[in-house]
Amino acid sequence: MRNVSVVGIAQIPVEKASTRSLRQLGAEVTIAAMADAGVEKVDALYASNMLSDELQGQKHIAALIADEAGLTEIEALQVRAATASGAAALRVGHLAVGSGEADLAVVVGVEIMSQGVASPALSKALDAEREVADGATLISTNAELMRLYFDRYQVPDDGLVNFSLNAHRNARHNPNALYRDRTISARAVKNSRIIHAPLRLLDSSPICDGAAALVLAPTEEARAYNPQPVHILASSVSTDRFRIEDRQDPLWLEAAHSSSQKAFRQANVNIDEVSFFEVHDAFSIMSCLLMEAVGFAEPGQGWRLAEDKKITLKGEIPISTMGGLKARGHPIGATALYQACEIVIQLTHRAGKIQVRNPSVGMMQSVGAAATTVITHIFSA
Amino acid sequence: MRNVSVVGIAQIPVEKASTRSLRQLGAEVTIAAMADAGVEKVDALYASNMLSDELQGQKHIAALIADEAGLTEIEALQVRAATASGAAALRVGHLAVGSGEADLAVVVGVEIMSQGVASPALSKALDAEREVADGATLISTNAELMRLYFDRYQVPDDGLVNFSLNAHRNARHNPNALYRDRTISARAVKNSRIIHAPLRLLDSSPICDGAAALVLAPTEEARAYNPQPVHILASSVSTDRFRIEDRQDPLWLEAAHSSSQKAFRQANVNIDEVSFFEVHDAFSIMSCLLMEAVGFAEPGQGWRLAEDKKITLKGEIPISTMGGLKARGHPIGATALYQACEIVIQLTHRAGKIQVRNPSVGMMQSVGAAATTVITHIFSA
Repeated sequence: MRNVSVVGIAQIPVEKASTRSLRQLGAEVTIAAMADAGVEKVDALYASNMLSDELQGQKHIAALIADEAGLTEIEALQVRAATASGAAALRVGHLAVGSGEADLAVVVGVEIMSQGVASPALSKALDAEREVADGATLISTNAELMRLYFDRYQVPDDGLVNFSLNAHRNARHNPNALYRDRTISARAVKNSRIIHAPLRLLDSSPICDGAAALVLAPTEEARAYNPQPVHILASSVSTDRFRIEDRQDPLWLEAAHSSSQKAFRQANVNIDEVSFFEVHDAFSIMSCLLMEAVGFAEPGQGWRLAEDKKITLKGEIPISTMGGLKARGHPIGATALYQACEIVIQLTHRAGKIQVRNPSVGMMQSVGAAATTVITHIFSA
Repeated sequence: MRNVSVVGIAQIPVEKASTRSLRQLGAEVTIAAMADAGVEKVDALYASNMLSDELQGQKHIAALIADEAGLTEIEALQVRAATASGAAALRVGHLAVGSGEADLAVVVGVEIMSQGVASPALSKALDAEREVADGATLISTNAELMRLYFDRYQVPDDGLVNFSLNAHRNARHNPNALYRDRTISARAVKNSRIIHAPLRLLDSSPICDGAAALVLAPTEEARAYNPQPVHILASSVSTDRFRIEDRQDPLWLEAAHSSSQKAFRQANVNIDEVSFFEVHDAFSIMSCLLMEAVGFAEPGQGWRLAEDKKITLKGEIPISTMGGLKARGHPIGATALYQACEIVIQLTHRAGKIQVRNPSVGMMQSVGAAATTVITHIFSA
């Protein structure tokens, strides 16, 4: 397989409720990413979205976005893996360009969560018959993981607070973040509403609308499109037992471990060469468990990375550098494409006040349900 | 890209209403296709389904089926293109194995349409804001195409009847067909209930349940798994303007034309080398228009292929050789995988009484909505 690079990016500012439609947001970032790459045509478009079936009554979104963007007679497919769908679409774009079947591909993610009630549709990431039927939701599942973690490792009540504070601090300087105007305090996190004990509102990422896109090209031709291409060193998907209940240890996210191990091998990179990590911080506990599964901390020690400020921009392993899911926002199907755009911005030194110092390798992870599916990408400039 | 072959197949008999669940059917054909290939592990699983979000309250089906089949730590993704989703998943399996990223991949399609009311969810293949909002459904859209076609070309009322008769005749000898026990007459078709004028019940494929799967491997290693591998010569996706209303001629299916042209080039095959064609006969009018768009008939002449019996097993271009969508059944997300299994059976001379004589090249098409997306695959033994 030939190597693949990102030659164009586009994102719209994440909003609480967009006034525009799914097709408009999807087409806008598609066209903008193509303009960023200086191209007017592509061979393929891979689209990601999780909730449009329920919230917009719309399937067939890849062809819909392609049409709205003025693209026809192209390969247009939707790719899904629940809340990891954006990374799933990126993986297929990587396969299409890497295989030589496409010379230019757009990967676009879009989600409008503000129309209707997103939570029941989000829960369909879980097992309908054996989890949702028993009342489980993504929120209750993460709350349960948090409770187990706090109990097993005797973590203080405010042990995860710094994950949220770090994300919000970084989001202030990201013009595309939802919470660019909001600073929060440890006290605010600790006093925020309990949405599912012990999980509080400010342990959670917000419901929001957004869209982001990338253009991919073969690395050998990348500089013809962009003077600063960013290269995909690894793109790997892994799964665990579907339900947490069926796993040996609920606090060990095996899919995150195996996906990152595969990615390190593909990229020929060691974990200590990773300059920053765009973690899937849909919930603080998920950040904490992912840091452990990937290997940035020993089991039970992930929360100390936050506590000890090792996750800040100047820390050992900066995470959520442009606000993360927590504060940039988590418009589900678009989220991984935002992460990828942010990695491109960091690796090309365009992040301004939230620039990671001299980054050489950027890594991102995207999580489907409670880490049933985990998708890892590694990039370098 | 390296060449890719089919080294294992499995299908369950299509049923009006299965007593088993989505995960059970999906896992059963996954395991059976792997057994057919003689393998116990695969690197990747690509799943197809269109309606589980609404009808089973279940997203994340690739990981769900993988888990149920005893596969973890693999790449598992769902691929969609509305009613062409099965072929979309096959395309991504083709990319994964072709690129070298996977050495063995399962492609599995499953659909259970008997739980709940499928039609509103099916309509989401159309444009929610500009078609469904005005009352359009897949049935009304095909009825409108039929009316336009009959008017423009002065086709007699029973002009398309032979498409249904041919499909039902062939289904009788396919043990996996839904209507293997039902023969129908021209009179029965003509007198069947009008479901949306001028479209009658027996112009339409049935609502049903089913699952089918394939195992893909690199062609150079295919004989290690199967003494009779079948090779994928082409896998191509194309799109048209999303809505029929935006197309220059509603009766010309440009995506079917461009997808088949791309496929003929990829396969280095001429149209007259195609031994048989598994057409997307969800509606008789769709068969007719596809035959014209691919080039088996001139515009306005597709119906005469059926009328003149050129589509029968001994005709110039046999179609729906094992019953087609019309009579084998059309469990949406599984349909293209059934088509692919049938092509493998035909090309390896295992079709018994419905064997096409000396087939060398089998072709299939899968249609998303009213040919907004069309996916073409070409195979040879």
